[in-house]
Amino acid sequence: MIFQCLKQDLASALMTVQKAISTKPASTPILSGIYLSAEEGNVLTIQATDYELAIVTKIKANVEQPGKTVISGKFFTEIIKKISGNSINIEMDEETKKVKISSEHAQFTLVTMPHEEFPTIKPLIGTNFIKLNSNQFKDIIRKTTFACSMDEGRPLFTGCLFEITDGIFNMVATDTHRMAIKTMDFTNLTENVKIVIPAKILNEIVRIIGNDENSEITILWQKNEISFAFEDIYIKSRLIDGQFPNYRNVVPANHTLEIKINRANLADVIERVSLLSSGLYNVMKMSCSGDNIIFSTSNPDIGRATEVISAEITGPEMEVIFNSRYILDIVKHLESDEIVMKLNGPNSAALIENPLDKDYKYVITPVRTNNM
Amino acid sequence: MIFQCLKQDLASALMTVQKAISTKPASTPILSGIYLSAEEGNVLTIQATDYELAIVTKIKANVEQPGKTVISGKFFTEIIKKISGNSINIEMDEETKKVKISSEHAQFTLVTMPHEEFPTIKPLIGTNFIKLNSNQFKDIIRKTTFACSMDEGRPLFTGCLFEITDGIFNMVATDTHRMAIKTMDFTNLTENVKIVIPAKILNEIVRIIGNDENSEITILWQKNEISFAFEDIYIKSRLIDGQFPNYRNVVPANHTLEIKINRANLADVIERVSLLSSGLYNVMKMSCSGDNIIFSTSNPDIGRATEVISAEITGPEMEVIFNSRYILDIVKHLESDEIVMKLNGPNSAALIENPLDKDYKYVITPVRTNNM
Repeated sequence: MIFQCLKQDLASALMTVQKAISTKPASTPILSGIYLSAEEGNVLTIQATDYELAIVTKIKANVEQPGKTVISGKFFTEIIKKISGNSINIEMDEETKKVKISSEHAQFTLVTMPHEEFPTIKPLIGTNFIKLNSNQFKDIIRKTTFACSMDEGRPLFTGCLFEITDGIFNMVATDTHRMAIKTMDFTNLTENVKIVIPAKILNEIVRIIGNDENSEITILWQKNEISFAFEDIYIKSRLIDGQFPNYRNVVPANHTLEIKINRANLADVIERVSLLSSGLYNVMKMSCSGDNIIFSTSNPDIGRATEVISAEITGPEMEVIFNSRYILDIVKHLESDEIVMKLNGPNSAALIENPLDKDYKYVITPVRTNNM
Repeated sequence: MIFQCLKQDLASALMTVQKAISTKPASTPILSGIYLSAEEGNVLTIQATDYELAIVTKIKANVEQPGKTVISGKFFTEIIKKISGNSINIEMDEETKKVKISSEHAQFTLVTMPHEEFPTIKPLIGTNFIKLNSNQFKDIIRKTTFACSMDEGRPLFTGCLFEITDGIFNMVATDTHRMAIKTMDFTNLTENVKIVIPAKILNEIVRIIGNDENSEITILWQKNEISFAFEDIYIKSRLIDGQFPNYRNVVPANHTLEIKINRANLADVIERVSLLSSGLYNVMKMSCSGDNIIFSTSNPDIGRATEVISAEITGPEMEVIFNSRYILDIVKHLESDEIVMKLNGPNSAALIENPLDKDYKYVITPVRTNNM
């Protein structure tokens, strides 16, 4: 194996596959490696997998002699990040099985692992797929995954429901206290699907897509696996097993009180008042009356915080207690100047929306407490 | 107690005293508090101490009613950081002993602790003091503390020796493997002193002085304590007990090989080559010959790294093994374009200097190993 490539291309490819490199090398050492295949046609294929997640990417290379090998993911990535010069020469000594990486005045020699032991990634094939603009998909992910649970003890809620029913696509995330739903039309899709994708994989896709891309992403699913293909990158992940709860019943159909409020002001007020919110549930009281909302928190050992904010309120006087963090989360993810809250009293779920985007809904359950 | 002050002044004062607030409130709750004293003459004095370190600062305030109290350092600091508006009103209810903090539409009420229980800070008095420009002192600290040990099990080496002998001032830091010495003339000072100041306190002083100051700092010591006074800030710290070793013997008086080398290039090369330096001591070999130095590291499980750099070399061929981190540390702290290394062979201490600053010396001991 002998090839030359641009440092920048290789560094960027290694950043792409990074998350799939196993961090538990003790159990399966080969998975701590990166699989390199220098191929005819001047292509270098790079693969990494920890069995949960698999990533493949390709870059241009000047392949003098095709070949395959597996080298330490950690050290190869660090070397390529720090090596000087624009062009890198990589060469495998077929006798010692060592790889020589050289650029300018520096030379690194790394031991390798047998490439036959690496579980190379087989692409999924099938007819169950959709195509999406990558920025659109990034937006869907950003607007939902934050509402997932971090509790690995309840794996189902660490993922997002990816559902297509009669041409309507919904991505749904919930930790059972709040829920985010992003909807899209796919009228050309007739087949229904209901699968749960790990949120951490979706967040990784956002990172890989980065800022610059505006390409098409193909999402294909099959039994317990899903794949995402865009440009020269291919990502495959396991799905989460289990029956996602019926989220439609949770979305309140009516409301007794509607509030329209400036989003940036609301974020500032909640950040301040929640400084003194007490206990595990960050309890914060909203008291709506006239043209004002009073936000207040109290913490018996520390003190009290109150702040008044003006708002457009339609409906009766009402006091509701929420987890302040759950409100802050959605306030940060909506993009509109104003947001709308639809309340049904202290014991019923509330709806928070961007008034200009009916395809994005956030449902939050009040906290029931006597400590306010 | 009633006063108004500028949010910016108060927030900056709270940042100043921050490090002296005890992080172990369970043992002595009062030390988790900040002592506030609103005084006639429109001054607010703010104090914090954890017994090791004590910090006092003063700001301007419009004092309507003088008074004293102690409130939670953590919550008070967070509230003042996030509160909106330029001016803050602080008012103590003498009956409930609660403090009300208000600004614009927000209001916080905090419980207080009895101010009589707070160990208010008594300034050191005495005739053993020096005055220094604060930027000069910051420079001395930055050039030495990094060489201290982090090992709390050997407390003496977690501090810097502050020594004045016959009008010559030396600040010395060592972890016993390498040593940094910064020298200054104080010909007007006749009294000798040899004390050890905790490095973490010195680093805290650098933080407090910040970027903008160019004031005079008065350093005064007495038995086992030292104080630093500048502008409206007063810092008092305990000294470290023990006999600092005789560092003068460690500085090599002669050398057989001298190297002059570009500092930025050297830093880059060491950063790259040390990627593969193995084991606890980050061993890296320097092989000097002709106009070149070859830096190399090797790690039996991973591989080898080598890089050549050109240098002005005066003396015989030589191979010496160093801890690469110790060389990188000094390379980052010298400010000159070129640095000079003076070597005495593989088993003797080496000297590293800025050729334009004879008042700053760095001594490093080679690593003795057969694994290269």
